Amino acid sequence: MDKPVIVLLSGGLDSATVLALVSSRRQPVIALSFAYGQRHQVELEAARRLAAAYEVKEHRVVQIDLRAFGGSALTDDSIAVPASGQEPDSIPVTYVPARNTIFLSYALALAEVSAVTEIYLGVNAVDYSGYPDCRPEYIQAFQAMARLALRSTVSGQPLHIHTPLIALSKAEIIKRGIELGVDYSQTVSCYQADQDGRACGQCDSCRFRRQGFLQAGVADPTRYQ
Amino acid sequence: MDKPVIVLLSGGLDSATVLALVSSRRQPVIALSFAYGQRHQVELEAARRLAAAYEVKEHRVVQIDLRAFGGSALTDDSIAVPASGQEPDSIPVTYVPARNTIFLSYALALAEVSAVTEIYLGVNAVDYSGYPDCRPEYIQAFQAMARLALRSTVSGQPLHIHTPLIALSKAEIIKRGIELGVDYSQTVSCYQADQDGRACGQCDSCRFRRQGFLQAGVADPTRYQ
Repeated sequence: MDKPVIVLLSGGLDSATVLALVSSRRQPVIALSFAYGQRHQVELEAARRLAAAYEVKEHRVVQIDLRAFGGSALTDDSIAVPASGQEPDSIPVTYVPARNTIFLSYALALAEVSAVTEIYLGVNAVDYSGYPDCRPEYIQAFQAMARLALRSTVSGQPLHIHTPLIALSKAEIIKRGIELGVDYSQTVSCYQADQDGRACGQCDSCRFRRQGFLQAGVADPTRYQ
Repeated sequence: MDKPVIVLLSGGLDSATVLALVSSRRQPVIALSFAYGQRHQVELEAARRLAAAYEVKEHRVVQIDLRAFGGSALTDDSIAVPASGQEPDSIPVTYVPARNTIFLSYALALAEVSAVTEIYLGVNAVDYSGYPDCRPEYIQAFQAMARLALRSTVSGQPLHIHTPLIALSKAEIIKRGIELGVDYSQTVSCYQADQDGRACGQCDSCRFRRQGFLQAGVADPTRYQ
């Protein structure tokens, strides 16, 4: 249990729960966050607070410019974040092209140079926005690719991508987190939180979060605008 | 043939040949290069010259900081680039962790926002340095993952990663390029070229390139230091 693991830490509800879960096993954590020109920069501040609260071994924040590609309401100021339910049957405009693929690719590089074999990612395929790169079949395919991509893995080292929340409902995630003592008031999930980290209460992410607290029977600590 | 394709363009011999190959079919090209803190920045200048010479539709240069991870002689100034043959049976220190995975991940994002379905990459698994992410099984696994990762592909759009040089020897690549009129004096392959783009003649990449010209029976136009 001395070997560090990598936790992708956005600062949202899901990744905070993953961090708490891993920390409860006393595994040393290298937290990895991305500054990717997202609207919700306050999420990053939340990630920094969480990394400090859980005393991670190391917190790397990698600057990447997904705005160069545009195409998402989360990174392109010319596209509005819709209120929830506006796009019932499609992948929403808040989808960022290849986001998890890019994030996990950096995690692979970090895993290799840090001799880490376990990567944790808080994706969730139950109460989620329908992003293709949150589904189990995607994660499996990424792991298969990763095992062929690295000097370490082709030399026989294992590599696992863990998604402990993937089959849980938002309410189940919250219940698990509350057991672990997660202070969800310190997390930011909103796609368009204000500068103080207060949530809009309208976007998909806010809706799933609010419903989760309701269904879990837990008072919602989220600060709304 | 009006639909653009993406060509990953490093400015080296291989990617120049791929660009010439694709351009000979009159396919519009979006060239994608990376400024990744590499020692061989002059390679990027070569990429710009090639993009201009082949009149690509668009040339995107994405800044990414692989130095944040270190671990390679190509991005970490504290590790020396070895002369060829110093590491006969291993993956060399010039290996950059997860490099092609990160590059291809950005290519996926660009493919999606540009409605591109064909990505070209000049990797080569014959006369190469033994990097795991240059092998056909890796490319296949990446393509399988990519098809599960994107809104476009899960909605039924095709996505292909083409590696037209993967089974060719360096000499065969050069012969093909010469037929296509590639001016190899404009390309930079050396891992530690000087500021004027002149090659060291000593590193793995120089050795494969020099041997390639010799075996192809083509005068080597490389400018050496």
